[in-house]
Amino acid sequence: MYNFEYRNPVKVIFGKDTIPKVADEIPTNAKILLTYGGGSIKRTGVYEQVINALKPIEVLEFGGIEVNPHYETCMKAVEFVKTEKIDFLLSVGGGSVLDATKFIAAAALYKNGDPWNILSKRGNEEVQEALPIGAVLTLPATGSEMNGNAVITKYSTLEKMAFSSPKVMPQFSILDPECIFTLPDKQVANGIIDAFIHVIEQYLTFDVNSPIQDRFAESILTTLIEEGPKVLANRKDYESAANFMWSATMALNGLIATGVPQDWATHMIGHELTAFHGIDHARTLAIVLPGIMDIKRDNKKGKLLQYGQRIWGITSGTEDEKIDAAISKTVEFFESLGLPTTLKDYDVPNETIAKIKIRFEERGGKLGEKADIDFNEVEEILISRM
Amino acid sequence: MYNFEYRNPVKVIFGKDTIPKVADEIPTNAKILLTYGGGSIKRTGVYEQVINALKPIEVLEFGGIEVNPHYETCMKAVEFVKTEKIDFLLSVGGGSVLDATKFIAAAALYKNGDPWNILSKRGNEEVQEALPIGAVLTLPATGSEMNGNAVITKYSTLEKMAFSSPKVMPQFSILDPECIFTLPDKQVANGIIDAFIHVIEQYLTFDVNSPIQDRFAESILTTLIEEGPKVLANRKDYESAANFMWSATMALNGLIATGVPQDWATHMIGHELTAFHGIDHARTLAIVLPGIMDIKRDNKKGKLLQYGQRIWGITSGTEDEKIDAAISKTVEFFESLGLPTTLKDYDVPNETIAKIKIRFEERGGKLGEKADIDFNEVEEILISRM
Repeated sequence: MYNFEYRNPVKVIFGKDTIPKVADEIPTNAKILLTYGGGSIKRTGVYEQVINALKPIEVLEFGGIEVNPHYETCMKAVEFVKTEKIDFLLSVGGGSVLDATKFIAAAALYKNGDPWNILSKRGNEEVQEALPIGAVLTLPATGSEMNGNAVITKYSTLEKMAFSSPKVMPQFSILDPECIFTLPDKQVANGIIDAFIHVIEQYLTFDVNSPIQDRFAESILTTLIEEGPKVLANRKDYESAANFMWSATMALNGLIATGVPQDWATHMIGHELTAFHGIDHARTLAIVLPGIMDIKRDNKKGKLLQYGQRIWGITSGTEDEKIDAAISKTVEFFESLGLPTTLKDYDVPNETIAKIKIRFEERGGKLGEKADIDFNEVEEILISRM
Repeated sequence: MYNFEYRNPVKVIFGKDTIPKVADEIPTNAKILLTYGGGSIKRTGVYEQVINALKPIEVLEFGGIEVNPHYETCMKAVEFVKTEKIDFLLSVGGGSVLDATKFIAAAALYKNGDPWNILSKRGNEEVQEALPIGAVLTLPATGSEMNGNAVITKYSTLEKMAFSSPKVMPQFSILDPECIFTLPDKQVANGIIDAFIHVIEQYLTFDVNSPIQDRFAESILTTLIEEGPKVLANRKDYESAANFMWSATMALNGLIATGVPQDWATHMIGHELTAFHGIDHARTLAIVLPGIMDIKRDNKKGKLLQYGQRIWGITSGTEDEKIDAAISKTVEFFESLGLPTTLKDYDVPNETIAKIKIRFEERGGKLGEKADIDFNEVEEILISRM
């Protein structure tokens, strides 16, 4: 395996009836801004649990954070944070709310010009400090609750950009699996696939002799395949909800990435489909991944065969037949959860592929664990998914 | 799974040629005490790498920390720390040195009377503060490099006691697998078994529907079984050394313990064998565990069958036959690494069993994940290992 450094100081508070513990984790003299999304937390009772736990501390609020949160919305929150001299951000919601909160936390203390730099320059160096963040997670999917990553979309230019910094790791994240009980099917299915493909991005590359990381990754994939459909079938199955929630956190907390190559081409291409057509993040991944598996089968041969065997029990046929079977099984799994996997399913026109190709050409650089996917190959991958 | 809280802020710096990074992790104005054991770090060049990296910072030294470190030795270091106004402890060695350093860090700032309280009262509450610790690990085994646990022996009374506190988690741990190249066979074999049984203590209990934790545990066990013998056969096999080292760290950093019951009876009984006869820690575990697996087979039935199937491929026979086979495979594995597994192998007399029985009777309380192993059953377990 490669050399690596790993540090993840996020305190995870996991289990039923844990939301009131939020009060133990925030200094009583903090001026808190509670950030949230479209208001589902008020319908589900999560908001009330948080506010009751924090009484008598005054909590200011900033709601209306979108799925695929907008830079423009975040900047309004940044102004509010500065005006109100907020010193603690409490994200109550899913990964979008938390990602926005991370950007707000960094942008509020950014001293180097336009906070868009944080995104255009990809984080780390740019983020010297950030406001402290706590999270109450209502939707397992992004893994944002135990990492320093965030993805933000500039609405005015349809650019979806990521940044990463240890400064925006939450100080604590409360994960109550009962939050899953009230989620719609679509969000559960998206969450399962999002977590699944986070694992794939860190696992389905090339072998560097990292059996612990490989097996941990396979542990998460297998658990998502087993537990995901149970959650979808019975939203009140607490144990399956808990296993799904912990899987999603473990999928992107840096652990399975230690000492191994990473891909992330599926995400980079998928982001463009969200930017141009507003397709849910996880759904873009379900479209793109089979194309990457197919077109990059030579780069990924060893791991594709290992994945096919260990995850799907594929042991017969030629190498190419085994890889084809692994791709088919993956597509079947996504579709069984209700996620279509072709561009046609979403009425994405050929022109979008052309636009995305141009964007990667202009941006320069290449994608994938071997940094060998150029804009022409991006086009080829997308055409394979029409 | 059960509710849980998990936080592990240790920064792991992993890989070859990483020891010089120690200089980036310690404040330049710190007054450092380098703690070490019998002096092997001076023969292997690790000491020189550390001192050269830290130049021109002055580093004071405290050597001679024993395997199964003595309370009495630690207290000498505590005096030295106070006299010299040390403000950073740098442990360079294996788990014993690091465990001693953790106790020194806590005892130096202990304000509540006799520091033995930290051990007799089992840590957490007693340890309000501790000096900062960094570690350069030279021997994978105990997992001490990524947790807040320590085990200390009071030589005068032959009591081996553990404590645990997040305050004594290392700020950083440097893990260079090349340190394994110079280890004697015995230390490698002990380390493999120590890590293996750490996993078993957190895994081989009863089912609480925790597939991620179970599979992570099985990932570590399988990797130790595969990679351990390779390290033993070829001490310069860097990749196997790295996989062994990362396995040992993951075996006891709290992750596989999240939300599951834990046993630790093997450790509690094993500690007494070390206290009375000085048998290496890992070797005591290899003696006791097969007895626990046998005598507690009803408590552990589901997990024993799962362990047998997933780790050793045991699928045929009655349940009891499968469990017997799983125990045999475990014993064979330990013995294949050169660790005898009976008390007779170490010339432990019957009187020791009687003494250990009395000690557990006097101490009160029961052991195991169901807290149902009393002093009589401790005796039964030990007699089964004669």
